[in-house]
Amino acid sequence: MSRFFSSKYAALEAYVPGEQPSDMSRYVKLNTNESPFPPSPKALEYAAANTRSLNLYSDPQSQLLTQAVAKTYGVDPDMVLVTNGSDEILNFAFMAFTDKKNPALFADITYGFYPVFAQLNDSPYETIPLRDDFSLCVDDYIGKKGTVFIANPNAPTGVALEVSEIERLVKSDPDRIVVVDEAYVDFGARSCVALTRKYRNLLVCQTFSKSRSFAGGRLGYGIGDPAIIADLNTIKYSTNPYNVNSMTSAMGIGILEDEEYTRTNCLKIIENRNYTVDALKRLGFKVLPSCANFIFVSSDSIEGGELYRRLKEKGVLVRHFTKERISNWCRVSIGSRESMEIFIEKVMEILKA
Amino acid sequence: MSRFFSSKYAALEAYVPGEQPSDMSRYVKLNTNESPFPPSPKALEYAAANTRSLNLYSDPQSQLLTQAVAKTYGVDPDMVLVTNGSDEILNFAFMAFTDKKNPALFADITYGFYPVFAQLNDSPYETIPLRDDFSLCVDDYIGKKGTVFIANPNAPTGVALEVSEIERLVKSDPDRIVVVDEAYVDFGARSCVALTRKYRNLLVCQTFSKSRSFAGGRLGYGIGDPAIIADLNTIKYSTNPYNVNSMTSAMGIGILEDEEYTRTNCLKIIENRNYTVDALKRLGFKVLPSCANFIFVSSDSIEGGELYRRLKEKGVLVRHFTKERISNWCRVSIGSRESMEIFIEKVMEILKA
Repeated sequence: MSRFFSSKYAALEAYVPGEQPSDMSRYVKLNTNESPFPPSPKALEYAAANTRSLNLYSDPQSQLLTQAVAKTYGVDPDMVLVTNGSDEILNFAFMAFTDKKNPALFADITYGFYPVFAQLNDSPYETIPLRDDFSLCVDDYIGKKGTVFIANPNAPTGVALEVSEIERLVKSDPDRIVVVDEAYVDFGARSCVALTRKYRNLLVCQTFSKSRSFAGGRLGYGIGDPAIIADLNTIKYSTNPYNVNSMTSAMGIGILEDEEYTRTNCLKIIENRNYTVDALKRLGFKVLPSCANFIFVSSDSIEGGELYRRLKEKGVLVRHFTKERISNWCRVSIGSRESMEIFIEKVMEILKA
Repeated sequence: MSRFFSSKYAALEAYVPGEQPSDMSRYVKLNTNESPFPPSPKALEYAAANTRSLNLYSDPQSQLLTQAVAKTYGVDPDMVLVTNGSDEILNFAFMAFTDKKNPALFADITYGFYPVFAQLNDSPYETIPLRDDFSLCVDDYIGKKGTVFIANPNAPTGVALEVSEIERLVKSDPDRIVVVDEAYVDFGARSCVALTRKYRNLLVCQTFSKSRSFAGGRLGYGIGDPAIIADLNTIKYSTNPYNVNSMTSAMGIGILEDEEYTRTNCLKIIENRNYTVDALKRLGFKVLPSCANFIFVSSDSIEGGELYRRLKEKGVLVRHFTKERISNWCRVSIGSRESMEIFIEKVMEILKA
């Protein structure tokens, strides 16, 4: 830290992304929930068509892409904001809707960026423990004051909530916002987007990084009441008006025009997840019920950190969190069938050794 | 504004980017200081080579691009941070280095985003008037407490400071940071980057949007002491760790490997600027001495807002600011020779009418 750094941020602990080793090709990479498939060929086609105007600023309103997202989800364009990845819209939501008077409320075990965003914005936050089976009970949030952030499906557990439960929470207090982070929703959970037309206190965030195979392009979006989106736009135009670059915008449109490709890939991931879960259960693993492109696993035969290290030695990267309640678990991204077969093979070697 | 919006931002006035009409092709666009040339062909080559890995997250450290910037400027990689456009690094600098105890200091006439960043971060700021000829005198800043932001060349005037003057300011108080925003430095001004190796309280920000013809790609960077860069990284990892997408990173490297192309384009812009300045002076215009890819002009024959409107009617977009001290001026970006000839022709038509 330099001696110039604002004392506001002196205690800030930044988020630590999953490791990206420079010799990545040596690894079967199951640690950052990426898709094993390339983005739709239509994306590449549109990117190529877009290179002529790169000397010009991207459209600060990202109009064409915003319209494409709106059309995909059957909402009005003024209910959509596209951002530089979904971390950006989550940060905007913490900026706009939490402060000293409006604390953030989220689970003890969830996306590790939420407490960072809260600290960054000097917003108090309260973590609410998941139940013993790592399920989230919305009754634990009802009656509490504050802006709620729920990852659904949750990370790193993969466990999903019913839409009716989230609706019960949203409806219970129209005077506070509920943010539903649906980064992983396309792998078997149900989206709350339709509820944004009914409730004015709901923001749903999604990303192109997972089901749409476009983590490298950085594209996320939020869907909610026009008044909420207007607030988030005020934040955007006060930080980085041209937040989404032209190539990413063009490719995003191509990806949305090829939803069949996305659906097919999601079905393959679900198949590979089923294969992996079955194999792990046969090996005596506990596996939480996952609606995501990852699974959360533990075994009585080997401690979580040890499993992570032994897998890394064998060229398979998974993610291990040191947080006490989950330190015996590993999060395993679901990749190609081949990758999952290698993963299972290595686990078997480790258990036998 | 929704009723949920944090009262922190209730009075925030967001930045207003230069207009991007949807029927842009109807206009000769001289209002957002874009380059008339496409980015280097090497950029497109590298982008094409990069499309295979778009399903994976971009490198959060942007190592290859950071090294390429460092090599270009002869500094160590830990003195460089790349960002999603230079607005992002400017915002990071306001976050990290201004607060209630460290006000921001900048000119009354300069980049209109500085007061927005200050408001956003709840940092007090003081604007220091440029002299009557729109020149900045560093003595007006020496002895004042606060973090200094200087656009050099300045926007929207185009007027540049000598490096020795900025050095005098940096040296005068090692206990405060000076941020030099060099978005337009490649069109005839001198860069302060070399000073970053000598002084620990200097941050230089640049962009790929102007001389490098890559406004649509969104790429900026800051160069400064490793401790300053570490602070900015803490902010980055607390807002958006994967802030630069893979395609932009790859293309940025291609652009840096083709500096000859950039230099040639800058020389063409300088030629076109000379042509335009000469023609306007012959028409009785006042033109400030510009080291940028735009000029700031006024005429006793026609008021600034009127000139902007009449030019727009004739299909030429320039930028007019309503701020009192400069309301009689227009900022005109320097485009291709053909665009500038059309601009001069339209000005002549307007003056004759």
